[in-house]
Amino acid sequence: MATPRKQYAVSRPLYSEDAFSQDHHKIDRRRKTPRDHVKDYLTCDSKRAQRALLSLLPVVGWMRLYRLREWLLGDVVSGVSTGLVAIMQGLAFSLMASLPASYGLYTAFFPMLIYFFLGTSRHISVGSFPVLSLMVGDVVTRLVPLNGPPANITGFQGLSPDQQRVLVASSVTFLMGLFQLAMGVLQMGFIVVYLSDTLVSGFTTAAAVHILVSQLKFVLGLVVPGFSGPLSIIYTLEKIFVQITDTNICDLVTSIIIMVVVFIVKEISDRYKSKLPVPIPIEVIVTVIACGVSYGFNFQDTYGVDVVGEMVSGYEAPIAPNMDVFRESATEAFPIAIVGFAVAFSVAKVYSIKHGYAIDGNQELIAFGVSNIFGATFRSFAASTALSRTAIQESSGGKTQVAGLISAMMAMIVTVALAFLLEPLPTSVLGALVIVNLKGMLMQVGQVPFLWRRDRPDCVVWVVTCLAAILLGLDLGLAVGLGIELITVVFRTQFPRCSVLANIVGTDLYRDQKDYACTHEPTGLKIFRIPSPIFFANVEFFREKLIEAVGFNPLRVLRKRNKALRKIKKLLKRKEMPVTENGDVHLFYQQPSKESEDETDVEDLDLDLPADFQDLPVHIDWSAELPAGISVPRVELHSLVLDFAAVSFLDMSAIVGLRTILKEFVRLHVDVYIVSCDAYVLEKLRGCVFFDAEIPTSMFFPTLHDAVLHALGHREDAGGPIHVVSNTKL
Amino acid sequence: MATPRKQYAVSRPLYSEDAFSQDHHKIDRRRKTPRDHVKDYLTCDSKRAQRALLSLLPVVGWMRLYRLREWLLGDVVSGVSTGLVAIMQGLAFSLMASLPASYGLYTAFFPMLIYFFLGTSRHISVGSFPVLSLMVGDVVTRLVPLNGPPANITGFQGLSPDQQRVLVASSVTFLMGLFQLAMGVLQMGFIVVYLSDTLVSGFTTAAAVHILVSQLKFVLGLVVPGFSGPLSIIYTLEKIFVQITDTNICDLVTSIIIMVVVFIVKEISDRYKSKLPVPIPIEVIVTVIACGVSYGFNFQDTYGVDVVGEMVSGYEAPIAPNMDVFRESATEAFPIAIVGFAVAFSVAKVYSIKHGYAIDGNQELIAFGVSNIFGATFRSFAASTALSRTAIQESSGGKTQVAGLISAMMAMIVTVALAFLLEPLPTSVLGALVIVNLKGMLMQVGQVPFLWRRDRPDCVVWVVTCLAAILLGLDLGLAVGLGIELITVVFRTQFPRCSVLANIVGTDLYRDQKDYACTHEPTGLKIFRIPSPIFFANVEFFREKLIEAVGFNPLRVLRKRNKALRKIKKLLKRKEMPVTENGDVHLFYQQPSKESEDETDVEDLDLDLPADFQDLPVHIDWSAELPAGISVPRVELHSLVLDFAAVSFLDMSAIVGLRTILKEFVRLHVDVYIVSCDAYVLEKLRGCVFFDAEIPTSMFFPTLHDAVLHALGHREDAGGPIHVVSNTKL
Repeated sequence: MATPRKQYAVSRPLYSEDAFSQDHHKIDRRRKTPRDHVKDYLTCDSKRAQRALLSLLPVVGWMRLYRLREWLLGDVVSGVSTGLVAIMQGLAFSLMASLPASYGLYTAFFPMLIYFFLGTSRHISVGSFPVLSLMVGDVVTRLVPLNGPPANITGFQGLSPDQQRVLVASSVTFLMGLFQLAMGVLQMGFIVVYLSDTLVSGFTTAAAVHILVSQLKFVLGLVVPGFSGPLSIIYTLEKIFVQITDTNICDLVTSIIIMVVVFIVKEISDRYKSKLPVPIPIEVIVTVIACGVSYGFNFQDTYGVDVVGEMVSGYEAPIAPNMDVFRESATEAFPIAIVGFAVAFSVAKVYSIKHGYAIDGNQELIAFGVSNIFGATFRSFAASTALSRTAIQESSGGKTQVAGLISAMMAMIVTVALAFLLEPLPTSVLGALVIVNLKGMLMQVGQVPFLWRRDRPDCVVWVVTCLAAILLGLDLGLAVGLGIELITVVFRTQFPRCSVLANIVGTDLYRDQKDYACTHEPTGLKIFRIPSPIFFANVEFFREKLIEAVGFNPLRVLRKRNKALRKIKKLLKRKEMPVTENGDVHLFYQQPSKESEDETDVEDLDLDLPADFQDLPVHIDWSAELPAGISVPRVELHSLVLDFAAVSFLDMSAIVGLRTILKEFVRLHVDVYIVSCDAYVLEKLRGCVFFDAEIPTSMFFPTLHDAVLHALGHREDAGGPIHVVSNTKL
Repeated sequence: MATPRKQYAVSRPLYSEDAFSQDHHKIDRRRKTPRDHVKDYLTCDSKRAQRALLSLLPVVGWMRLYRLREWLLGDVVSGVSTGLVAIMQGLAFSLMASLPASYGLYTAFFPMLIYFFLGTSRHISVGSFPVLSLMVGDVVTRLVPLNGPPANITGFQGLSPDQQRVLVASSVTFLMGLFQLAMGVLQMGFIVVYLSDTLVSGFTTAAAVHILVSQLKFVLGLVVPGFSGPLSIIYTLEKIFVQITDTNICDLVTSIIIMVVVFIVKEISDRYKSKLPVPIPIEVIVTVIACGVSYGFNFQDTYGVDVVGEMVSGYEAPIAPNMDVFRESATEAFPIAIVGFAVAFSVAKVYSIKHGYAIDGNQELIAFGVSNIFGATFRSFAASTALSRTAIQESSGGKTQVAGLISAMMAMIVTVALAFLLEPLPTSVLGALVIVNLKGMLMQVGQVPFLWRRDRPDCVVWVVTCLAAILLGLDLGLAVGLGIELITVVFRTQFPRCSVLANIVGTDLYRDQKDYACTHEPTGLKIFRIPSPIFFANVEFFREKLIEAVGFNPLRVLRKRNKALRKIKKLLKRKEMPVTENGDVHLFYQQPSKESEDETDVEDLDLDLPADFQDLPVHIDWSAELPAGISVPRVELHSLVLDFAAVSFLDMSAIVGLRTILKEFVRLHVDVYIVSCDAYVLEKLRGCVFFDAEIPTSMFFPTLHDAVLHALGHREDAGGPIHVVSNTKL
């Protein structure tokens, strides 16, 4: 698309910001004060109440629109397929959380009951999520280690280790739910924006590594105690390698066969996705086969294979959370709450965009908060969503959370009636299935070279988050990742490339003078572009770059001038210096006494004030030659233009620093202009009492060209105005 | 200064960025690669070696320029006055660090010996600093509590509690020195920029509160065990109030008298500062008097007053740092190292600007690192500088670190010969002197209302840092403050005020259309200004604001159009829809079969692709009326201009998000233009493969007006071009 050569012609008055606002009256917009916002927020009428109720119970909204004939079949089919996967994952993930397998089935049931009423996403499958299970498992093994006595917690007395573990898991889940609910009520759903895609990708890759390591013991049939805290992954791997000779061959062979079969079937299923009505439920098929084979050949007794074992049939009585566990696990429950919400919300967002409906972050927080509190009371553990399960629910035709409800019912049926069927299932089968499903998460490592080429800071965030999460553990790793992410934002604006601009001959455009040959920089005028916001971390940097650009330190020159002035005054007092008739100091005057070393120590701060020409009968032209013995650096600069187009904000340090440097230039009689300043930045400068006699508002101009034309017109003695004429090429 | 009304006239070709670069060839600047930088850095010749040596031993530089006759007297006078204060402070601050008083004298001596050779500041007084003393004291009381057994550390065996404390303090100081040295060698002096003035102010105010509380026990003559960790200040206060009835009246009265006297004399001295040759050494005077009185009336035995007690006379043998203490205190030594350096550097900077010489942050780190390592070996504790002492050194005429050396000698003389004179000094006197000197630090609270009015985020940083440092302790508080400070930077750019711009009639200027009455917005053209960098935390926000500004969701419209297209294709296939001769679909055609609810579920993703007009014999004009039963939202917009002037950077999330939303508009046949994009941002977009057939580089324009003129010229059917004519007012 070649741009047709048209002409650009403008003729208007030259505007400074002051002149512009004289000609164009600004409308006095009344902005809402914080009080207005609070008032608005607290106003209540029946319509608002109704809307609030509807937003608190989204089920009312979508149930009214439910198209029974069209949607129900899809929801049922989807619910059944999702339910099968949810059961499998529930078993596997409860082992990951160091809990007996049946509690995974609880997690597939209870949270969903609440989410059905409170959730705004129609497609996510609520239930266990491997990363959360692992994080809960960390707390569980810390408080109730496999070998060694449990932590000193009142409420553990008289409980078996498994019961202690369930108590810990449900208490952590309860606390996590409380955190989520509190954040939802406080409207803090926006926090997910801080978890950038890069951060989440690095974090989940690290989580996949942790999950992989945690499953090795099942696949190899080894007994490995759980470690927690920094470097626990190293200790776990060490423990595994020490025992590697004790590997249970039956477990290993079963696992490898299952991994290979599932992997191949998944690849095929992926390739012919469009031709298959529903994805092949290969995990369910191998589980059923494995159950049968294990039962038939009595794997448990014959080969010493670890099986799921006795399942709790039916449901147990509700349980109260334990305060001691709250205290012990508060710092871990918070990241669990954040991760749980972040994952669910990001998955929900994908499908809400795909299907064109709105989800509400705060309501999701409330929904998951209440779901987890409710679930924890019935001994289920941390619930969120798993991407894989949600993909199945959506792709197999699920339209609403009715599908979720049906999948929860499936889990209930298994819990109540069919749990005994799963008892001979080897744990290595579950481990193998988990590992096979990690492929996608681990493949994210491929992003690193891509990010490295495109955006270094993003790459650093990915790598640091991933390494920190692997080595320090998921909770600390998340904190480190967040810190690094925030630092990169600061870093991106901290060392920007400042540039000196010059006019592109024949136009009103200004570009970096080093980039173009056909530029014109009028003598005595510098245009300095500040390409980023100014704040505490870069205000000094800009000062240095500006001094470099103009070629002198204004403060130093000012001091030298003031010192010279003092000397001249002293000489004049002694009447040793002849004054010409027109009031100029005689130029080639030889100073009689050698006194240049005599730097008497007057209060130094006076030197930073503007040169004081009062009670001086002569006129001093600093750029002319001065009496011998008195030397002051020459300043060729008469106008300095600062391009503020990219200065999107200033903080207090920046305002103070900017004011200081501007004053230094003004005191050297350099005209300073600020151009293209954002209206809100200007408003803020006014609010911060930035302006005074030395820094007037008249230094602001709407465009660079206005300021340059004004500056050159203002200093007739300078190198002549820029001639902007029509380009002859046309 | 009224701007004289001049004319602004421009006539040049209309430029897009592409056209501009055709006309103006960009110089191919070779940028230094990281490898070049490394090469430069490693290149070595004799000149560089000499300069490196000089920068490592700044003493060589300034000693050569030393003006013996002029400077020596000032240095000696200043050294003596500073020395007296340094001795006093040394005693007081070593009590603050829970150490016997004589170690404060060591701290006034050893570190200075090294700083003399390595330091770049000529005016700071090196030695103890109250905040550091307190932070060291926290570690000391944690590892060797007043009541209760010391921590389990090898090396404590056979040592008295005081010796254990000295071992802990010197080990922490050694480690702190190591951290500083390492940071200096790694050229990490830039970290001080992250400690903004606001943060430092909030932090030091909190430190003053801690110091005040720590001195209460001396002033009241109570025995209070040291607490450490979060909320320790609450426990300390509780302990003090519980014992308040045991207050030693003699201590209290002495303290109050001293505080009142010193306060009044300081105020007077401040008022007549200009008339006094040196500040009145009131602290030294009251100390001498208090020593005399305490000795004369035998305060210790008569009133049970706590005195400084036996001083170590002379110096002790060097001590090796303890590895166990390193391990226990690593997380505390790091903030101590940072705070020590930050305070010294900021004080040094003030005087270097005042006297016009350069200081080097990295060399200062090295200097303090080595000073502290050396000092720690000789049992002194953490050294930095104190603002009060430095002010005395400079104001009493100190020109170079010769003054510092003389003040160190004073401390040495007292240690070696006169220490016994200080033994009867009540500790309450030292406490009172410390408290009186906190006035300036505590008065910083006055900044809060000022900051609140000027800059809310800065105010939040101050308050959070201060409260966190008070309640959580200084080290954790500093970390929290840094975190909040980084978050505010992100926050400032996260919810910026986007605006829709419109042309100011008769000019080439564009302003927020809500702000001005005399604006013109051409029909079908929107100008959207993005007033901040775009990154992970605000890319979604911009998407929402843009959708709000244009008034429709492009993705939704695209899907509706594609659905309508499918329907039309189906109707055409069944030949049920008459096509007019010129290929248009007949407008008022009544659809025969009611089929609008039949939304068959084809792969949804197809709906997001550009409308596929192939194998369609008709031309569809979306803005004309469509066949009945088919409705698609009307899109009036034909051109969208995004003002990128303030977009100083984009991260990967932003690039991906921007690309998505731009494509959605392009697929609706809206022409998108990006204007005033920074050269480096454009370069980065090229590097990230941002461009393709749908998003060509030709959408970039140098100015808003160029883009608008082009857009209006490009769409003749639109509301006519903007006429920019000379303003008739002239």
